[in-house]
Amino acid sequence: MTLDVNLGERSYPIHIGTELLNNAELVESLVIDRQVLIITNDTIAPLYLRATEKLLSSAGTLSSLILPDGEAFKNLTTLNQVFDRLLTLGYSRNCILVALGGGVIGDMTGYAAASYQRGVDFIQIPTTLLAQVDSSVGGKTGVNHPLGKNMIGAFHQPRLVLADMNSLKTLPDREYAAGLAEVVKYGILGDSEFFSWLEVNAEKLLARDPVLLAQAVERCCQNKATIVAEDEKESGKRALLNLGHTFGHAIEAHMGYGRWLHGEAVSAGMVMAVDLAQRLGWLTEQDVSRVRQLLLVMQLPVEGPAEMAVDDYLPRMAVDKKNLDGRLRLILPRSIGCCEMVSTVDHQLLCETLRSCSATR
Amino acid sequence: MTLDVNLGERSYPIHIGTELLNNAELVESLVIDRQVLIITNDTIAPLYLRATEKLLSSAGTLSSLILPDGEAFKNLTTLNQVFDRLLTLGYSRNCILVALGGGVIGDMTGYAAASYQRGVDFIQIPTTLLAQVDSSVGGKTGVNHPLGKNMIGAFHQPRLVLADMNSLKTLPDREYAAGLAEVVKYGILGDSEFFSWLEVNAEKLLARDPVLLAQAVERCCQNKATIVAEDEKESGKRALLNLGHTFGHAIEAHMGYGRWLHGEAVSAGMVMAVDLAQRLGWLTEQDVSRVRQLLLVMQLPVEGPAEMAVDDYLPRMAVDKKNLDGRLRLILPRSIGCCEMVSTVDHQLLCETLRSCSATR
Repeated sequence: MTLDVNLGERSYPIHIGTELLNNAELVESLVIDRQVLIITNDTIAPLYLRATEKLLSSAGTLSSLILPDGEAFKNLTTLNQVFDRLLTLGYSRNCILVALGGGVIGDMTGYAAASYQRGVDFIQIPTTLLAQVDSSVGGKTGVNHPLGKNMIGAFHQPRLVLADMNSLKTLPDREYAAGLAEVVKYGILGDSEFFSWLEVNAEKLLARDPVLLAQAVERCCQNKATIVAEDEKESGKRALLNLGHTFGHAIEAHMGYGRWLHGEAVSAGMVMAVDLAQRLGWLTEQDVSRVRQLLLVMQLPVEGPAEMAVDDYLPRMAVDKKNLDGRLRLILPRSIGCCEMVSTVDHQLLCETLRSCSATR
Repeated sequence: MTLDVNLGERSYPIHIGTELLNNAELVESLVIDRQVLIITNDTIAPLYLRATEKLLSSAGTLSSLILPDGEAFKNLTTLNQVFDRLLTLGYSRNCILVALGGGVIGDMTGYAAASYQRGVDFIQIPTTLLAQVDSSVGGKTGVNHPLGKNMIGAFHQPRLVLADMNSLKTLPDREYAAGLAEVVKYGILGDSEFFSWLEVNAEKLLARDPVLLAQAVERCCQNKATIVAEDEKESGKRALLNLGHTFGHAIEAHMGYGRWLHGEAVSAGMVMAVDLAQRLGWLTEQDVSRVRQLLLVMQLPVEGPAEMAVDDYLPRMAVDKKNLDGRLRLILPRSIGCCEMVSTVDHQLLCETLRSCSATR
């Protein structure tokens, strides 16, 4: 199946299915006779690089760059390796980059594409569930800074996204589960029907049933594409996609990028968001319990790390870039399936949430 | 006087005049109550930082970052210092950066603004002639890479440009002359009437007559604004602004950034362009001599460095980013005041030009 992200002249298709890596027709018109660089990592390269090279064989020049795997390498230093390679190869402004991997590869490749010669094309081939339902859609690109996640980046839309369910088969359990956290997010965020569907199908999804999986990925991409089309540069509605992320970013940053997976941090962060919403009287105890239960079935964390105290969260949350002028803004659910941005958060309730949602030391 | 650059929702005004740094009203609505960071260098700071701080005194938070002066520092390492400072200050996505300096400061500040939190606002206060007539207008931002100039960057428009003629008084002669090279470029490029005006007024301009200077800056900005409005992302007409630049970039890169000033390299590059155009039968000997004469009066180089042989130019020119797919494309004049892009350049004529326009060893 194919979804379209409608962004005027920056519109692009998302292909979702199986055996897509074997379907060279999908990409041929984009890569034919052009200089193409595949950017991937040392985990993904042994699994899918050869197939991807075959997929892109109509390219004029085809090279690949294999980076070290992990969020710890999502920084300006690694980014510069991409520029070094592109310039050593003599690639022009008409070249096209291909991100083959998870969110880290997608974000870095996208930012390299946004910046190389002030902007070249790129294709996303997300190989993780997280990347397929979230980071490969919507054009947010960037790298981390020691003082904050994704602090350096650009809005740069891909020309095409190719989400092949086959590539999820090789995903480690922990990473797969982390991807499910973002899937659940779309349910809480704005799609209560999908949330209920997830409750029914949680175990089959955890078992990677390919048919259900493709349906879930499509539903998430559809939700995200609608939001992005309304608000490409995150001046309004798009901020809702950060449900659980302000808490989650604090966890990732404090623990050191990579120790908690992004999806794991978001999972704990969503529990914090619903907990706080309950304290505000917006959600019932049952709502909170549904969210926790679904995440637990999906083998995701429902509390923050034992190492973190309240005071470890607050400064990290204040620097989160969604917070204009240092004021803390959070995405909180009014009900499951309906969230809003809250810009005056009761400090005491927030502290209670942080305390009650942390693992006991 | 005020010019408007028409780019839809990215439109912005260019104020040109004297005593503008003392006119806080021009910027007040943009900076009031916001987090503001002035980025400047150690040459400009002692001259204009205090006045600029006063200009921006309505800011909510006002800080400044003083970088080392020079093209040699226009790189990712220096850029990262800007991010460090912004994050240490806890500046949000709603902050605004102010570039106080020449082209290097403007390009780096603009790229930092394009990248910080995926894009924040910035103001250009160009203090060199080069920056006033060229780099501060049009939204091209970026940094250099050891393998090529401006290879990493973004298109990011400022919210306002403030070109104060007073700041040109302190400019060293060599830098001032380098700025005049870009002024002459607009004449050759698409404004023969302006070229004739420059021939008449060359000596007064060299003496920095403020009235004539403001007229020249306005005319250049007008020319550039018209071209940029037609072709913001350089897919067509905007490439004409690179007259002399492909040659010039080769000189700068070969000699090591900073040894030849950008404008000096462009001056020699323009002579090469008109020389090649004459070899193609497009220009008369008299045309070539008018260009050389005007540049000589302005105390600019009319030949490449003695250190460079033909073979030093060619590989550098091929990597120039204006050259799609490694094919050399050059901007060449059909007549003074009318240029076009040429994508099949006779190799032998090009070599003859490079040989004949180089200083004798």
